[in-house]
Amino acid sequence: MPMPATVPTGSHPRPADIALSAPESGIVDIMNYGRRQEGVMPLWAGEGDLPTPAFIAEAAAKSLADGETFYTWQRGLPELREALASYMQRLLGMPCDPERYFVTGSGMQSIQIALNIALDPGDSLLVPSPAWPNIVAAAGVRGALVHEVPMPFVDGRFTLDLEAMERAAVETKARAIFINTPANPTGWVADLEILRAVHDLAERHDLWIIADEIYSRFVYGEASLPGSDPLRAPSFKDVAADSPRVLYVNTMSKNWAMTGWRIGWIEAPAELGQIVENLIQYSTSGVAAFMQRGALAALTKGDDFIDMQIERATTNRNLLVETFAPINRLQVSAPDGAFYLFFRVDGESDTASLAKRLVDDCKVGRAPGTAFGPGGSEFLRFCFARDPAHIAEVAERIAKWMRVNK
Amino acid sequence: MPMPATVPTGSHPRPADIALSAPESGIVDIMNYGRRQEGVMPLWAGEGDLPTPAFIAEAAAKSLADGETFYTWQRGLPELREALASYMQRLLGMPCDPERYFVTGSGMQSIQIALNIALDPGDSLLVPSPAWPNIVAAAGVRGALVHEVPMPFVDGRFTLDLEAMERAAVETKARAIFINTPANPTGWVADLEILRAVHDLAERHDLWIIADEIYSRFVYGEASLPGSDPLRAPSFKDVAADSPRVLYVNTMSKNWAMTGWRIGWIEAPAELGQIVENLIQYSTSGVAAFMQRGALAALTKGDDFIDMQIERATTNRNLLVETFAPINRLQVSAPDGAFYLFFRVDGESDTASLAKRLVDDCKVGRAPGTAFGPGGSEFLRFCFARDPAHIAEVAERIAKWMRVNK
Repeated sequence: MPMPATVPTGSHPRPADIALSAPESGIVDIMNYGRRQEGVMPLWAGEGDLPTPAFIAEAAAKSLADGETFYTWQRGLPELREALASYMQRLLGMPCDPERYFVTGSGMQSIQIALNIALDPGDSLLVPSPAWPNIVAAAGVRGALVHEVPMPFVDGRFTLDLEAMERAAVETKARAIFINTPANPTGWVADLEILRAVHDLAERHDLWIIADEIYSRFVYGEASLPGSDPLRAPSFKDVAADSPRVLYVNTMSKNWAMTGWRIGWIEAPAELGQIVENLIQYSTSGVAAFMQRGALAALTKGDDFIDMQIERATTNRNLLVETFAPINRLQVSAPDGAFYLFFRVDGESDTASLAKRLVDDCKVGRAPGTAFGPGGSEFLRFCFARDPAHIAEVAERIAKWMRVNK
Repeated sequence: MPMPATVPTGSHPRPADIALSAPESGIVDIMNYGRRQEGVMPLWAGEGDLPTPAFIAEAAAKSLADGETFYTWQRGLPELREALASYMQRLLGMPCDPERYFVTGSGMQSIQIALNIALDPGDSLLVPSPAWPNIVAAAGVRGALVHEVPMPFVDGRFTLDLEAMERAAVETKARAIFINTPANPTGWVADLEILRAVHDLAERHDLWIIADEIYSRFVYGEASLPGSDPLRAPSFKDVAADSPRVLYVNTMSKNWAMTGWRIGWIEAPAELGQIVENLIQYSTSGVAAFMQRGALAALTKGDDFIDMQIERATTNRNLLVETFAPINRLQVSAPDGAFYLFFRVDGESDTASLAKRLVDDCKVGRAPGTAFGPGGSEFLRFCFARDPAHIAEVAERIAKWMRVNK
């Protein structure tokens, strides 16, 4: 379990309980450990090895040189909101209204805004577990109560337990449910039937759905939506296109190699626009116009780059599964989506320590499952959005280590 | 009073009370009104007319071209934290420890983080009024209760009512007090005696002080700290250098014409570092490294630019006071700091409507005092961080209008 920050001593007033209870990131912990060593392959974070493509960086630099350095629209540049709607329209194959799109200062901020719309302090949020730890922590900072609903791990695969979810909705008087599909860290992808069932459940109990479909483009094998072009994962849009209860959080980070930019978006019913604008105003007051010019270039000219990233991820996913499947100690299955391998090592329950041994012995940085909530504590996460040559090398090193250290 | 966002209709769940109660910005309202007309001088926002200096923009563009587009330190680049400490050391004339400085995604986010450290939902914050409206609204989004303590307006000047502040601290069981000096919108500047008294009060009642000294460089006449070089306003640092109860919020926006960038910093006791890092992690997860390179250039090479801005502001402040003082209808006094003229017009109590008439008749955009809380409702705010030739022209137009429309 991630530890809450230590209560500081000294003569200042006691910090707020909420601030004290925000946990340290379990991912940052291993990153700080591994950074001290030379030559460690950094597969701990959800980030690839490619810098942002030059045409995106150049669009931002040009805007800067042109003096676009003044306050701008809180909801985002109108042309970027148009471009977001066009991109999503192309991806989803259905009409998208620019008035539903709002630019934010990261996918993380999109989640914060969605949480602020859905939950007052003391309200309950349901999150299937394992989950990306920042969701749970962000809800905590908001003063909300999080109920993690374990995903059963059956035959090497995680699944959503709808009955447990419904019981939890009733017992906790939940106001919202967070669904991340394709999922970080598990690689789980919801099919249309599950999405429909979750939306029905949300209607029965009047819940908001916070939908995190940021890995939608990274979907493998039969998990993708039949007939979709481009290939993508099923979306809540496919089962409830006009649903007013779904808040979509998204980011420029993954598709366009813009992790360091801190720019994302939220899609919400247009009639919530003023609320979204106010929440942006009172948290960061908008996103730099020149950054938005970069995002605009990415959305309009970035398709080839995404295709290349998907191709690399697919190659890596297949290679990793082929290499690890024969190793008896490893419980691993091919992820249906996202770009993480999430696996269990027999006889290794202390994954925080295991992750550090793998840094020391194999020079490979992975995130320990302890970072992803109780449901993931026995697993390791391994990001494979990288050069296939690196991944092949790393896979070999780990396979060898597993054979030697039984 | 700014109006809360309308409760949206439709079949989504009810948004959180806190989200519904966040008010629309009264400044954005007049901006949206004035933007529809050609040639309106935009003096409504706290922003000058100069784009960011080229050497700052170029430093960011170079970093982008060099591929600094990956995740970075949550607390800020170590070299930027060093540069912040050096800058403050130069400004304050006392040692500053880089470990106390944390980079944020705007002064607004610095305020949010400080509020998160100081206040749990339901806790009380004291704010002298009139005040920049985002402080009050941000505390509301955090679920805190805000108690605005009116600043008496005597002989054309606002003052801090320490007795009222102490009563309010007791009655509301306050946990924090927000002090903005030099103040937006009033131009009030706290002297050493007042700062000492506020700090004593905070010690007596175990309050956090959230200190907003972002306009520290913009101080006029006798309000500046005697003997300081460069000239600056008195700071809590002068009366309680090592106080662990003061959280300083700051921004790159004003000194370096970087309003549109959304980059700021917070200074807090080093032992709160992990808490600050966690709060950054779960709100925006840090600031783009390439933006931080721009800030680094600003801090190390921006002194001449700041001097030029101060010179312009001083010229404008003196000109405005000379032009308006003889007009009997105007209650105006020379601001001691910041770069706003905040004045009252006899017989004009509906300042939201007056601001719109001045847009229509004079092509000048000002912020109505209604935006700054009950204590400022009869005033207009006028930003003079601009080319003196523009300000002279605008002053003439307004003076003429005031003589005609009695």
